[in-house]
Amino acid sequence: MKEVFGSPGKVSGLVLRIGQFLSAGASCGAMTSAPGFSVSTAFCYLIASMGIQALWTFVLACVDIKAIRLRRGLQSRTLVSLFAVGDWVTSIVSLGAASSSAAVMFLFVVDTELCNIDQNLGCNMIEISIALAFFSWFLLAISSHAVLWVLASVE
Amino acid sequence: MKEVFGSPGKVSGLVLRIGQFLSAGASCGAMTSAPGFSVSTAFCYLIASMGIQALWTFVLACVDIKAIRLRRGLQSRTLVSLFAVGDWVTSIVSLGAASSSAAVMFLFVVDTELCNIDQNLGCNMIEISIALAFFSWFLLAISSHAVLWVLASVE
Repeated sequence: MKEVFGSPGKVSGLVLRIGQFLSAGASCGAMTSAPGFSVSTAFCYLIASMGIQALWTFVLACVDIKAIRLRRGLQSRTLVSLFAVGDWVTSIVSLGAASSSAAVMFLFVVDTELCNIDQNLGCNMIEISIALAFFSWFLLAISSHAVLWVLASVE
Repeated sequence: MKEVFGSPGKVSGLVLRIGQFLSAGASCGAMTSAPGFSVSTAFCYLIASMGIQALWTFVLACVDIKAIRLRRGLQSRTLVSLFAVGDWVTSIVSLGAASSSAAVMFLFVVDTELCNIDQNLGCNMIEISIALAFFSWFLLAISSHAVLWVLASVE
């Protein structure tokens, strides 16, 4: 299989997965610790999607570690296809969740100024969580493209 | 270049582009005709992103028509690379805009029930616009994957 930056079974791929796992986990943690996050369904959806992303990237990081320890790339086409589908579904869900939360937050901060009015709403923590979610999605998008590229080049 | 469903310069690709153009245009039209859409920045962002998408897909549809009339696929690698980058940027912006608007609409319909309280807000038209935006993004996602696949297979 072709070698590109971030492809599965490579050190660059593992670094991306660890970054995705840490930022998704941190995003999830920041949102759950923000007071009053349950005011909008979008924030709850962000927690769910970041939780799924953390779980998915943790499994893939383990597969990458195994492949690196055995000093060989991932040879199975079926496994790489599974990675591609999973990565794409997760990245679409993550981008949707991050954008949704950002839109609601923009409504609270700029359009209605609810963050200034309601001091019980943990706007700062929610903003940090959204920024981490976008960062996590960005790393996942790189991995998704790398996996698709590897898959297409061996077709 | 490899031939896959929806690749540029093919009839299937042209059909997808026409579908994207029509649904993006209709989404833009439905949102602008909804009373009170300017209450949230997310709805204005949807209009901007659907406008850009309609423009982009119109240009690509013209390129496809020219390639089909000349009875040859798109041979230029540079042109296909440009299509790939443009498609990906447009599809990320579209998904972000559609998700943002959907989240704000969910807040208005379910979380705060603003649609029941404020009868001056054209909730039905906004919902139609969001549904069309998601449909347009879905068609664009198919085209984006086809272009990336074609590009990766000739690397």
